Amino acid sequence: MRIGILGAGQLGQMLALAGYPLGNRFVFHDLSGSPSADIGETLVDTAQERLEDFLARVDVVTYEFEHLPVALVERLARDKPVFPSAQALAVCQNRAEEKGLFTRLGIPTPEYRLVNSAAALEVAARELGGRSGKPVVAKSITEGYDGKGQAVLRHPDEAADAWAAIGHHQLIVEAFVEFVREVSIIAVRDQHGEVVFYPMAENQHVDGILRYSLAPMPDLDAQVQARAEGYIKMLLDELDYVGVLTLELFQTADGLLLANEMAPRVHNSGHWTMNGAVTSQFENHLRAIQGLPLGRTEARHPTCMINLIGQQGKREALLSEPDSHLHLYGKGERPGRKLGHVNIIAPDHATLLARVKATAAQVPEAPPVKFSFDPDA
Amino acid sequence: MRIGILGAGQLGQMLALAGYPLGNRFVFHDLSGSPSADIGETLVDTAQERLEDFLARVDVVTYEFEHLPVALVERLARDKPVFPSAQALAVCQNRAEEKGLFTRLGIPTPEYRLVNSAAALEVAARELGGRSGKPVVAKSITEGYDGKGQAVLRHPDEAADAWAAIGHHQLIVEAFVEFVREVSIIAVRDQHGEVVFYPMAENQHVDGILRYSLAPMPDLDAQVQARAEGYIKMLLDELDYVGVLTLELFQTADGLLLANEMAPRVHNSGHWTMNGAVTSQFENHLRAIQGLPLGRTEARHPTCMINLIGQQGKREALLSEPDSHLHLYGKGERPGRKLGHVNIIAPDHATLLARVKATAAQVPEAPPVKFSFDPDA
Repeated sequence: MRIGILGAGQLGQMLALAGYPLGNRFVFHDLSGSPSADIGETLVDTAQERLEDFLARVDVVTYEFEHLPVALVERLARDKPVFPSAQALAVCQNRAEEKGLFTRLGIPTPEYRLVNSAAALEVAARELGGRSGKPVVAKSITEGYDGKGQAVLRHPDEAADAWAAIGHHQLIVEAFVEFVREVSIIAVRDQHGEVVFYPMAENQHVDGILRYSLAPMPDLDAQVQARAEGYIKMLLDELDYVGVLTLELFQTADGLLLANEMAPRVHNSGHWTMNGAVTSQFENHLRAIQGLPLGRTEARHPTCMINLIGQQGKREALLSEPDSHLHLYGKGERPGRKLGHVNIIAPDHATLLARVKATAAQVPEAPPVKFSFDPDA
Repeated sequence: MRIGILGAGQLGQMLALAGYPLGNRFVFHDLSGSPSADIGETLVDTAQERLEDFLARVDVVTYEFEHLPVALVERLARDKPVFPSAQALAVCQNRAEEKGLFTRLGIPTPEYRLVNSAAALEVAARELGGRSGKPVVAKSITEGYDGKGQAVLRHPDEAADAWAAIGHHQLIVEAFVEFVREVSIIAVRDQHGEVVFYPMAENQHVDGILRYSLAPMPDLDAQVQARAEGYIKMLLDELDYVGVLTLELFQTADGLLLANEMAPRVHNSGHWTMNGAVTSQFENHLRAIQGLPLGRTEARHPTCMINLIGQQGKREALLSEPDSHLHLYGKGERPGRKLGHVNIIAPDHATLLARVKATAAQVPEAPPVKFSFDPDA
């Protein structure tokens, strides 16, 4: 079975590495002009002039990033199966639709407002900031390739400037959330509607970039896992979704989960599954889109993923702890760029934390490791 | 680091899949005219006219099969590092030198003779067959690509016919061994002489082709493992070896290990490590030849490898047991050809055996599973 992938970055590369053993071969369609997957065939097609060629080479199509034109996916879906569907993609691309879906399904979210003017933004900032005047976040409801389009408002007076800076006709404004930790759940739905769930991960972001992801997350309460599974299963079923879906949430001090956003694809917070789970997220995504039975998702041992951002570091140093597994993407160094990750495995969370800290010390410019269960953090 | 591989079959493909995450890229040199690795670059060069081109594209060279001209390896080693060395390759290619090395190092083997004539073959068959007239095996001391060159002599009178049929100037004649099981040990030696060992596997061959390999082998005695480690370490050190070496042995009823043969490469009896060990044999071979620290070799759980020979079978069926992992090589079906394997993992050997039998029932023309610890076998 020949798999077509829209996008040709590291997620596509890891899909291909997982797919060779299933008998798959891969063709990448690249809109960016700078593909890095470097495996299988790549069609660079920034002008979308080679879609027929791409379609002729593949049996099924999937994608590794969500910022691609829905119309392109709809066009491809007329000739070949595309998973996840254009409908799922459209919802995930639009923060208003995404949050609307969460609300419609009864999935709690941080409080939010949709606004269409600077004046409405100021009102929303005042309402959501509350009496104590907490900051709010304003985001363009659609996001381009560049990741721009967000602003933190420390005071409602900043509304006019924020509105001008973002420069979009509709924004979503979100209340500040007092959370204990950021978490995520990854699930996979097959073509018959069967769903499997990975154990939840605790994620540590710095400046909006994921740095560490640990699963199963420490102090993982079975009820919390069950609640997250319930939320993501509603989303999967509602969207008649096929493949891997990721839901990022905030966990509050009283154990509540508030949905932040979802991604219709394999996800950085699931890279731990490559070494730590019975079946990786990449393999399970491929199994789902080609109609194979899903593989089991349990963690063999606690595992932590450390991202390599901007600089790759020395391979010897990154492999110096026991049960360390390196994943380099073969990309050039550039500030803020994801170049690879290391998965560290240990028999228990305490040992894992020690190994992660020792390895993080070898990662260029790695931020301090601060997981919620760490008494030293 | 760019890795050059002599040979372009499934072992090379699995090396490449293990090497991408280490940041490696691969160039295959194919003498056969029928490469199947289908990853990275492949130079088809049956006339050995593109060696300069091959050398210019790689940083280090290794090989995936041992039936290649030693002179070719020596030529390449003048320009780029080649691991394992041409010397190790030469010993493994010649049964007389191989058995001579075993004997010189004090590693027990089945009793054997070297013979240079039909008359000497008859004498050897008589001596090794003993009073009860047991059969003996005569083998050409060097083996070509086709695997021909062996004969079983049921009686010394068959010597003239066997000599003529094999048609080689020197044969090795081996006594029949009453063994309990066939086993193997795989070890890896790095460029500083550090050695790591995988737990031993029990192997089931049918008609000379490996069908099942189970590790850690059931009833694995620590002393037996230590003895095998001692043998292979002597071989590694004696040959100043770098990379993965495999030693196949017979285990007798009294626990003795008799060395059968060795292979200077990743080996079919180590494919279980892809899912069952902390670090796969493929990754550890690559780590060794490029000077990276070796990864840990312990088994996470008992694991059994089932070969897919001649026919591939249905993927759905092969993945129907829990914790099953499929590895297809992307080759066309042909009788006797290795097309892929399935790794099955279970928490204990009894559960594993049940899962292996259930999966083997889905493998086209799979022989009965007969491991030494199975009361039903």
